[in-house]
Amino acid sequence: VTALAPTAVYLDRIARARVAMDQAGVDALLVSVGSDLPYLTGYEAMPLERLTMLVVPRDGEATMVIPRLEAPRVAPQPGVFELRRWDEIADPVAIVAELVEAGCRPSKVAVGDTMWARFLVALLEHWPSDGTHYVRSAEVMNPLRIRKDQAEIDALVAAGAAADRVAAQLQAGEIELVGRTEAAVSADIGARLLAEGHDIVNFAIVAAGPNAASPHHHASSRVISAGELVLCDFGGTMAGYCSDITRCVSLGPPPAEVAEAYAVLHEAQAAGVAAAVVGAACEDVDRASRRVIDEAGYGEWFIHRTGHGIGMEAHEDPYMVEGNTLPIATGHAFSVEPGIYLDGRWGMRLEDCVVATDDGPLPLNRADHSLVVLDV
Amino acid sequence: VTALAPTAVYLDRIARARVAMDQAGVDALLVSVGSDLPYLTGYEAMPLERLTMLVVPRDGEATMVIPRLEAPRVAPQPGVFELRRWDEIADPVAIVAELVEAGCRPSKVAVGDTMWARFLVALLEHWPSDGTHYVRSAEVMNPLRIRKDQAEIDALVAAGAAADRVAAQLQAGEIELVGRTEAAVSADIGARLLAEGHDIVNFAIVAAGPNAASPHHHASSRVISAGELVLCDFGGTMAGYCSDITRCVSLGPPPAEVAEAYAVLHEAQAAGVAAAVVGAACEDVDRASRRVIDEAGYGEWFIHRTGHGIGMEAHEDPYMVEGNTLPIATGHAFSVEPGIYLDGRWGMRLEDCVVATDDGPLPLNRADHSLVVLDV
Repeated sequence: VTALAPTAVYLDRIARARVAMDQAGVDALLVSVGSDLPYLTGYEAMPLERLTMLVVPRDGEATMVIPRLEAPRVAPQPGVFELRRWDEIADPVAIVAELVEAGCRPSKVAVGDTMWARFLVALLEHWPSDGTHYVRSAEVMNPLRIRKDQAEIDALVAAGAAADRVAAQLQAGEIELVGRTEAAVSADIGARLLAEGHDIVNFAIVAAGPNAASPHHHASSRVISAGELVLCDFGGTMAGYCSDITRCVSLGPPPAEVAEAYAVLHEAQAAGVAAAVVGAACEDVDRASRRVIDEAGYGEWFIHRTGHGIGMEAHEDPYMVEGNTLPIATGHAFSVEPGIYLDGRWGMRLEDCVVATDDGPLPLNRADHSLVVLDV
Repeated sequence: VTALAPTAVYLDRIARARVAMDQAGVDALLVSVGSDLPYLTGYEAMPLERLTMLVVPRDGEATMVIPRLEAPRVAPQPGVFELRRWDEIADPVAIVAELVEAGCRPSKVAVGDTMWARFLVALLEHWPSDGTHYVRSAEVMNPLRIRKDQAEIDALVAAGAAADRVAAQLQAGEIELVGRTEAAVSADIGARLLAEGHDIVNFAIVAAGPNAASPHHHASSRVISAGELVLCDFGGTMAGYCSDITRCVSLGPPPAEVAEAYAVLHEAQAAGVAAAVVGAACEDVDRASRRVIDEAGYGEWFIHRTGHGIGMEAHEDPYMVEGNTLPIATGHAFSVEPGIYLDGRWGMRLEDCVVATDDGPLPLNRADHSLVVLDV
């Protein structure tokens, strides 16, 4: 649930979106399910078959096309958008097309990144792609959304602190591990995220022993044993903004090779954070973490990028990945999360989120970065 | 989490999808996030920016294009699909295009209904819509998915029974209502859905007093009071299949007008279920419920269709709505849920799901259909 901002915030965002549309030559911006809509209007669409769509023509009023039965959910934002309710047997895509064509047939349309493809298929019937050029809403919206304002940073700080409290419970041994299934621990972590103030649990990866070698492992019915390394990567949404943290704990003293690899990982993560300064390229953060891991000889086992942006979405721009030369700017928020994965044996990742500021990276997570050893 | 079926089930489904593609003249079926993918392969894609896509050419092998770091999550299904892993800096849409063009440039492509639009935008760069006709995956998949097999019906029965147990707790007064916020009750119902065996809570609408006049009301911070009618509409996913039930309770004896309206609603819901027989049109179910409400003079306050299909998705084909002349067939599963909503005053809805069988509708919900009055 996105917390409502004052109407002035949405007026300003729509105005900035129009400027970005103008610069990109976009005639109409169409956003549906996903976070562009609450960013612009405060309203989150239900991810169902009934279309909700904000239609922003380059000139002229914005209109939210909404199923009649969901219209009472929308908090009005005077001057930001008008509501256009549609009845059960109407064709909402035809309504959208009509609203846009009230100006003229659009030559360039930006469509919501996470909009359901079925609605774009329907739009193609109105405007085939040889006459209308389709681009991602990201082209218009991401330059706005990528720089968090103070209220957004405050929300990220609060969500990060709530996730940190759960990480601290894990590291203090308050979350029982040995003898429980990964799935049970995942549910436990999820409940703790809610108890600490999150509105939604987005994910709670719990991967023990060899399972941790799968970076996006789905918590399974496998029972966790003493002697294993347990990777926990979890986050949720709190007042509309996301948290994301990864910590590993060792159930008893780790084998030497695990301890050695963790020391490298720890250094790599710190190097990534240290590189996350305003003006550096996003890929520099990836390179800084990767260099430490490469030089220690674990390079082939670090099989993913170093980080992703975070905000209203768990993953969003900017991405800390080779090839992304975008300069880091004040207000960029992102994860720094190198990992080392030995197929069939073990895996480890260490993740904090940070916000770039003129005074250097502001950490959103402060839980103990060492490999905490729990008594078993 | 979808329960894995035997490989033979997926082989059969892919084979039937190919027949449907052939009939529809579809050269390539492309499915991503959503339930078509687990229906065909047992694997559920992560709804993130890294593309997972099953590519099914009309002739030739199916391939699942998957981020390298998520590949270990996939349970292999020999003969069903091959895996094609992509690395962080690759362009997965280019890989998809290349796999399809290995035959030849497709003239008709079916794309996943709930795939993110950004990936269709990228596909349009490869195959503009003047040369390639795009259709919804629903055209290929829904005729398969709409008729549930016995294992699917068993799963729906189990999920419905679990939701019924929570409804029974509500009707027995075990869920405290008076003095709590709607949001707190919603969280409580969600926890009970999980405790009764659901893997995921999909929604738990709690709408009291005037809030219940908004059919898709979001549980709010409003405190529930004695004397109010409380509408609870909730469901989740259990072993891959959904539940969905709505019951209302009255906190103390209801006013006469509420009791009278509920009697009409009760009759309307029963009439809808009675009309849900094999061979009748889907719209006949809507008409049967609506006629009762119309004749009692409440017609203008029944502002939505009577029902939706249910299965791997909370809402799917077939829809019980005016204009849908599709004949009901054995194995169709759907809700019957008329409602009456008096703006600013109160609202009520009564919902069961049923499966059409040759012996008449099999109810998935059996919780008390009357307006249960709780002591306050």
